[in-house]
Amino acid sequence: MASLDSLIEQAAALENRPVVAVASAADSHVLGAVKMALERKLAAFRLFGEAKEIRTLLASVDSHLLDHPSIEIVDATDQRQAAQLAVQTVSSGEADVLMKGNLPTATILKEVLNRDYGLRKETILSHVAAFEVPGYEPLLFVTDAAMNIAPDLMEKAQIVRNAVQAAHACGIEKPIVAPLAAVETVNPAMQPTLDAAALVAMNHRGQISGCFIDGPLALDNAVSQEAAEHKGIAGETAGKADILIVPTIEAGNILYKSLMYFAKAKVGAVIQGAKAPVVLTSRSDHMESKLYSLALAILVSKN
Amino acid sequence: MASLDSLIEQAAALENRPVVAVASAADSHVLGAVKMALERKLAAFRLFGEAKEIRTLLASVDSHLLDHPSIEIVDATDQRQAAQLAVQTVSSGEADVLMKGNLPTATILKEVLNRDYGLRKETILSHVAAFEVPGYEPLLFVTDAAMNIAPDLMEKAQIVRNAVQAAHACGIEKPIVAPLAAVETVNPAMQPTLDAAALVAMNHRGQISGCFIDGPLALDNAVSQEAAEHKGIAGETAGKADILIVPTIEAGNILYKSLMYFAKAKVGAVIQGAKAPVVLTSRSDHMESKLYSLALAILVSKN
Repeated sequence: MASLDSLIEQAAALENRPVVAVASAADSHVLGAVKMALERKLAAFRLFGEAKEIRTLLASVDSHLLDHPSIEIVDATDQRQAAQLAVQTVSSGEADVLMKGNLPTATILKEVLNRDYGLRKETILSHVAAFEVPGYEPLLFVTDAAMNIAPDLMEKAQIVRNAVQAAHACGIEKPIVAPLAAVETVNPAMQPTLDAAALVAMNHRGQISGCFIDGPLALDNAVSQEAAEHKGIAGETAGKADILIVPTIEAGNILYKSLMYFAKAKVGAVIQGAKAPVVLTSRSDHMESKLYSLALAILVSKN
Repeated sequence: MASLDSLIEQAAALENRPVVAVASAADSHVLGAVKMALERKLAAFRLFGEAKEIRTLLASVDSHLLDHPSIEIVDATDQRQAAQLAVQTVSSGEADVLMKGNLPTATILKEVLNRDYGLRKETILSHVAAFEVPGYEPLLFVTDAAMNIAPDLMEKAQIVRNAVQAAHACGIEKPIVAPLAAVETVNPAMQPTLDAAALVAMNHRGQISGCFIDGPLALDNAVSQEAAEHKGIAGETAGKADILIVPTIEAGNILYKSLMYFAKAKVGAVIQGAKAPVVLTSRSDHMESKLYSLALAILVSKN
């Protein structure tokens, strides 16, 4: 079975050690994740925030970190400046990954999207989660469960492209993409079925490449060959989805939480669509999950 | 842990044996379910359809069924007539539960909704699924994952009432209802959060009674006390939902399939909102699931 631990191994095996810029790093949870990432030799870290506070917290996490050769501390007066400096470091190419520390998501995203010095590209930002689900063979990417509320077709196309890039970075050459709906047939009363059909056509016409899109599919047809066959959905890709495209943030969030709480899945996640990957872990995330997110972001940054 | 098997026991323990009217019963899967229900002494059956074909199939399932005292066969020339006669039998009070046999869902629902002899009430029909989820203590009702595509507030209120009736029938005196969203705060850009807040107010004002509604909630806050506490959501009901109200059919269908395929849950389901409960199992459902659905419908019919 594909595992998230293998992403950590892949990231640790990269030739050039990447640099992660942490915006507002004065937080024991964040610094705990930094410590674990350093132990796994995943990256070097540039920590932005109140230098004195960061040093105090580093000492309390592990005093050896204070003079760790892969840690650099850059003083910033407040959260906003920390975010701005961290983003600019990534913009300039001195760092490869942006990581959120102890500040509101909105504050860091505002700097990411800044038109002068930010990381904005032509595409939208989207959240890509990679799950290791007990009993399911491939890594299962779910998008977008956290950023885009009710994406329209062209936004969904970008969401697919962002996720496909992440899958490629994890070594999945031609991911199988399933735009989910409540049914597997096109029904004009259900917009997700129309969007799914359009995404398939965009794939056929080369508007979305590097993947194989089949939809609309209900979740069972997307992840169970038996269920797909039962519905008469044939082909080598049926029931073997790598990437699930959810129609709304609610459907995605419910799937995400169901996988975590009921299916005992593990997860790592990254924000795609900026010039560099962004890691937005929160305090409530497991330490393991923060590491998986970092590994995923590092692989994406090097792809 | 609450179990679906206990619903079968409760249904089998009822004093007056209920009658189930099966529309278009000439199907070996349906008759297999009838056989199992008879073995559990759940109900008596009135089978509508081509009598000769039903007898042939009954004999192939189990020849003892041909003269079983709790089976009555009523001849019908086609699916539509079978549906019509079965619905009328329930309408007249001679049967307590309507069960779909070998015919399209649309055909039987058309008869259910017939204004002259159907089972229509003032409320909408909605699908209520009862899950037994490994690791989760209560039975978990999910609605509406199958019938209403994108219900508005007043439809959601009816969907809640329909599910609360089902929970009461299963012995849950005051079910905890969680209207799900992607977040647990009210956000005008996310309609499900506004509808959730309105459902809570309707509960406070007595417009929806017999339950305790708390929302908006993300799924984790609804089913995990730890997650709820982490978000500062206090109270005796936090993290202990009995009934999950999903915002759209897609969110519901994805949750339903995720529970089945990834969390290895068991399920029974019933259509609520008509004058009698309707069982719409399909060929792909496990036999066990058909029995759970029948037990649930029988309990609802006697409540």
